[in-house]
Amino acid sequence: MPRFFIRKDQIIDTDGTKTVHITGDDAHHISRSLRMAAGEKIEVSDMQRMLYECELVEFLEKEVVARVLSERCSDVEPVCEITLYQALPKGDKMETVIQKSIECGAFKIIPFKSERSIVKIDKKDEEKKRARWQKIAEGAAKQSGRAIIPEIGPIMSFEEAIENACKSSLVLLCYEAEDKVSIKDALRNVKIEKTISVIIGSEGGFSEKEAQLAISKGAKSVTLGKRILRTETASSFVLACIAYETEL
Amino acid sequence: MPRFFIRKDQIIDTDGTKTVHITGDDAHHISRSLRMAAGEKIEVSDMQRMLYECELVEFLEKEVVARVLSERCSDVEPVCEITLYQALPKGDKMETVIQKSIECGAFKIIPFKSERSIVKIDKKDEEKKRARWQKIAEGAAKQSGRAIIPEIGPIMSFEEAIENACKSSLVLLCYEAEDKVSIKDALRNVKIEKTISVIIGSEGGFSEKEAQLAISKGAKSVTLGKRILRTETASSFVLACIAYETEL
Repeated sequence: MPRFFIRKDQIIDTDGTKTVHITGDDAHHISRSLRMAAGEKIEVSDMQRMLYECELVEFLEKEVVARVLSERCSDVEPVCEITLYQALPKGDKMETVIQKSIECGAFKIIPFKSERSIVKIDKKDEEKKRARWQKIAEGAAKQSGRAIIPEIGPIMSFEEAIENACKSSLVLLCYEAEDKVSIKDALRNVKIEKTISVIIGSEGGFSEKEAQLAISKGAKSVTLGKRILRTETASSFVLACIAYETEL
Repeated sequence: MPRFFIRKDQIIDTDGTKTVHITGDDAHHISRSLRMAAGEKIEVSDMQRMLYECELVEFLEKEVVARVLSERCSDVEPVCEITLYQALPKGDKMETVIQKSIECGAFKIIPFKSERSIVKIDKKDEEKKRARWQKIAEGAAKQSGRAIIPEIGPIMSFEEAIENACKSSLVLLCYEAEDKVSIKDALRNVKIEKTISVIIGSEGGFSEKEAQLAISKGAKSVTLGKRILRTETASSFVLACIAYETEL
């Protein structure tokens, strides 16, 4: 069944009968490219966790109307809400990080500046950057069948990021100097439906001072094993570990 | 301690005293760039699992000689030998797959053709491609601190790949139509020091016919969860799961 993404206000409830009003490219796609007809079925996601099975009922000039047959909450979202705090990496690697971590289940991604981040983003370019990242997030969410569009937060300072991250019930600092506690040790006691923050450094990792500050605020420093992972590999590795422990 | 990579024949054993003979760029790097002096220490890897702690003893015209102080077997290699069978993906994604899966612990990578592989590589270009992939493998192995250089096998047909893969003690077919057995179910009973084959499809996944053939030969079809992973994300996801289950 073809799937389309809509905003919640495209669903109209008339005396208990819900209809979905599809316009723009999607309407064109349904009627012209797919050549669908009244009576055929589509699935619609509101990207706020709900999925609607619909039957096409009307083809207007610039709109396709579908009647909602049934609705259900999507089951693709991870049991934990995982926020990824990613220190700004070099070049366009942030885009790779966003794309891959959304496939692997991140709920929210917050870029931050760390001592060893080489990339400098001008204050005036930040919003433009963020808008671009949000667009990548949207594409990745749709492509991987997510039921929400993960938000890309504003770029934070290291201190702000730690402050925010430490509000979660579990805070994992991926720290290369850690050689005792593995991510598995830290995850083994996670109860489901918790919030998890994952903090990942840029190419140079974290300074000892940064690590100490994070730990003093409540972060658990963990190792991802004996091989050195690139910063853009670390986030998917951690998200796979969390999925393995809590979902699979 | 700076680390250098050598071939085994660069180590000379004279009456029980081993010396390492470093030439070329590395010799230049030690004497000119790092400006190291006799008495300083380096670590040398033979990329065949052995690490040597050495003391610099002699600086010749085009060679640096170091005396081996101690040697040990590296402990960074996974407990299982994991061979990744990757159906040829589009564009230069095979390069990403090689780089990421070597960071994540792959022992060997074998590209293969599947029904839904779009990429066609001419027989005459295969060896050139493979040489390029092997070079990427070498770089990734060194960068991630591996103790071996994983081999990139020749491009196989689907049937050859399955035949080969099924010689391992555990054969995982990542199959999107699988909805019962998860990779965790399949890994839970793995004993350490086994060989594992991981088979991953190209963008379009596997046809039912291919999946049936693999299963009939002994592969276990597994799901990686409810979100759709791109082919270049799947390999690192699986390798992270294996590391989580067997190493961390």
